[in-house]
Amino acid sequence: MTDGLHRYRALEQWLLKGISEGRWPVHGRLPSIRELCARRGLSKATVQHALRRLEARGLVEARPKAGYFVARLPESLSPPSLKARLDAPRPVTISSLLLDIMARNGAFDLRPALATGDAPSGITALNRAIGRALRRQRRSSYQYYDEPAGDPGFREQLALRYARRGWPVTVDELCVTSGCQHALFLALMACCSAGDVVAVETPGFYGVLQLLQQLNLKVIEIPASSGTGMDMDALEQALRRWDIRACVVSPAFATPGGALMPDRARDRLMALAETHNLAIIEDDIYAETGFDQVPDPLKARDVSARVIHCSSFSKVLSRDLRLGWIAGGRWHDRILHLKMVTQLASSRYLQQGVADYMSEGALNAHLRRERIRLREQRDQLLDEIHQWPGALRVTVPVGGLALWLELPEICDTLAAYQDALKANIVITPGPLFSASGDYANGLRLSFAHPWNEHRREALGQLPGLLGLS
Amino acid sequence: MTDGLHRYRALEQWLLKGISEGRWPVHGRLPSIRELCARRGLSKATVQHALRRLEARGLVEARPKAGYFVARLPESLSPPSLKARLDAPRPVTISSLLLDIMARNGAFDLRPALATGDAPSGITALNRAIGRALRRQRRSSYQYYDEPAGDPGFREQLALRYARRGWPVTVDELCVTSGCQHALFLALMACCSAGDVVAVETPGFYGVLQLLQQLNLKVIEIPASSGTGMDMDALEQALRRWDIRACVVSPAFATPGGALMPDRARDRLMALAETHNLAIIEDDIYAETGFDQVPDPLKARDVSARVIHCSSFSKVLSRDLRLGWIAGGRWHDRILHLKMVTQLASSRYLQQGVADYMSEGALNAHLRRERIRLREQRDQLLDEIHQWPGALRVTVPVGGLALWLELPEICDTLAAYQDALKANIVITPGPLFSASGDYANGLRLSFAHPWNEHRREALGQLPGLLGLS
Repeated sequence: MTDGLHRYRALEQWLLKGISEGRWPVHGRLPSIRELCARRGLSKATVQHALRRLEARGLVEARPKAGYFVARLPESLSPPSLKARLDAPRPVTISSLLLDIMARNGAFDLRPALATGDAPSGITALNRAIGRALRRQRRSSYQYYDEPAGDPGFREQLALRYARRGWPVTVDELCVTSGCQHALFLALMACCSAGDVVAVETPGFYGVLQLLQQLNLKVIEIPASSGTGMDMDALEQALRRWDIRACVVSPAFATPGGALMPDRARDRLMALAETHNLAIIEDDIYAETGFDQVPDPLKARDVSARVIHCSSFSKVLSRDLRLGWIAGGRWHDRILHLKMVTQLASSRYLQQGVADYMSEGALNAHLRRERIRLREQRDQLLDEIHQWPGALRVTVPVGGLALWLELPEICDTLAAYQDALKANIVITPGPLFSASGDYANGLRLSFAHPWNEHRREALGQLPGLLGLS
Repeated sequence: MTDGLHRYRALEQWLLKGISEGRWPVHGRLPSIRELCARRGLSKATVQHALRRLEARGLVEARPKAGYFVARLPESLSPPSLKARLDAPRPVTISSLLLDIMARNGAFDLRPALATGDAPSGITALNRAIGRALRRQRRSSYQYYDEPAGDPGFREQLALRYARRGWPVTVDELCVTSGCQHALFLALMACCSAGDVVAVETPGFYGVLQLLQQLNLKVIEIPASSGTGMDMDALEQALRRWDIRACVVSPAFATPGGALMPDRARDRLMALAETHNLAIIEDDIYAETGFDQVPDPLKARDVSARVIHCSSFSKVLSRDLRLGWIAGGRWHDRILHLKMVTQLASSRYLQQGVADYMSEGALNAHLRRERIRLREQRDQLLDEIHQWPGALRVTVPVGGLALWLELPEICDTLAAYQDALKANIVITPGPLFSASGDYANGLRLSFAHPWNEHRREALGQLPGLLGLS
């Protein structure tokens, strides 16, 4: 996308992003052609071509002798709307169709199990570190289970990372799990009983809805903005009306849209939790993808041990490690016990290998590269979406692996899912992200994978499959 | 123990075992001195010395010109007694002391986390196979979750093993788990609801009791013989009196005593399950340790898909793999779903590494060596126990990792546990193996680890710690 032919589109994309992010407000002046040439290293012809295309779409206007001005906020870059309704708590029922779709969507890939392209150097280094840990596994340590909480050296490395994010956690407060989903499971098992009500974001992570169904918990869906996450007014309203036991929340780059909860909302969430004696289950799995910054966890604000922090390396390192962790606050002893009773232990060699990888600085180096790659892939995806016809609303996340697209009301992404599957394309339809069947015209689109020929071709088929015109 | 000095003791041990196993019945004639010399490769002096020692203990008697005869069954080799009482079903409550003891006993080691001695060659080969699988993990497969049921190649290897044990299972019937405890957890979650009654062996595996407590299931303890396992008369009686949902059973070398359920009992169990619509949860984790033979699984007799088969490699290969599996019969779809919802997936590279190890024949080679090692270590332990004072009853298992010792009534192994811990010795007191606080004078003694100097020294302290005299 950034090669010779498409330079003007890259500039167009960059300008649109600046406009949508408020860098240049509506009716504000854009940088001059000369400034744009200098800043972006482009020829005058390329800059003019991009500006004329935007002018043709009515997004900027040329004023003689004064330059180009922002005409209006591009509709295609407006954020998706916030759900207004607040439904009463009820049990979760997930159709077998949705379960099937969920099972196919963990890899965030339009092309199922494509697995092309070489692994990045960070992954080769990771596998070497694990291999070394295996060879180092001397003597008869294979005959001993790891301690239930996990390898202390690995937990120490995790603690060091969290300290840099404003949360001075000790090794004893952390317990290793088989991934983040396992951590969320232990968290809900520990702080809820069958029939309890749990608040979640809508749209939000379907894995939590599956857990609520499994554990016979009731759900109340709290509207979440695609930009700032769970709506605190709505949560407060719900807490006043119903007895809510726990709240599962993803403050950092929540799926599906990549929302980042602002500080003020975090403070308010913690205050509400205090007033209503709420357990907060924090899903931190996307935090380390943050393109510009890794936000502090909610747990850093947790003065009364009511936040259960859950995370893993599946989204930022490898989905095949199955290595997650949990800090259970006041429920930690119970969580440790649950981990032991249901699984005994985790693999020590694996944790030791990853701990080495972390202490050598290899994880940080890998993440630096990943964040650049993800941002580029996001931009390439946005650029593509802007070519699609129809009135679209889309999030422009600054972290995470996906954006959320709101299609025209008439679109039915669940029907499109079936058609797409026939073309060997897996999409993530909106109804997955709610227990209420909402978001028929919503779509999560991931930028986790490189836009190679196969995926670009699949992406090119989407407007047709989605019935956009 | 089998070096020059102790040849007579090895022979003594071998003769006692033959006697206790009924090879030479009471009042029956033992092989002649000449036969014994030839068969065991011993000098006449050694054989005579052993026979005279047994004669001195009153266990054999010399009849002039006729040879040596079995005088009586050695009391120290009598099997422990069968529990006679059948208590009504009730919820499980496990004290924090017992939980603490359970957490320390997974390694079956008198000396906690001693981990001395080099790993056997089979483990080095295993780690190499896993390392190769890691290096082979090409391209972007690290970005994809394994399928919920687990790697098909690994399941294929498992299926091949089971086919040789009389159970022609297909790959689709197997689901990979994080060890056997995880498999048991999924099994109980799938076929029981809170409040249901589950039958277990007594004495039996404490991990199951912990799961019952966690899942709010009621337990009914069915007496189990240390030789032949769960008593089918008692089970039938219980099934007639109470509504029992499931039965957890270890037909092959059950912990703590290593009982092996005979064919007749297996047939009867399956018939009872049919009549009373019982779910059977088979814990097969010790089966492959069988010194002389690996028994067929119960699952091979399962004509109505009511057996849930659970196992792992923790006892026969490595406790650090965390690799188990489950075949859920009629509950398999639900189990697959539970696995996915609570944990998403397992590590693909690990399964592929272990699959290679199996297909190369390295697992079979390792197991052949392990079985010889375990039998020797069992004999060394029995030989030691025979030197202990007091009236002891002990199992002589032909598989598994431990034997069960019944001490004089006056002994309190729970009290001894505390004293032992001060001497840095971990014992496994009897009350662990029951939900009713029984077996205060019971003790599980493991022969999983080599009897090196440290463990021999610990073993030597046990009679004192246990108050034997």
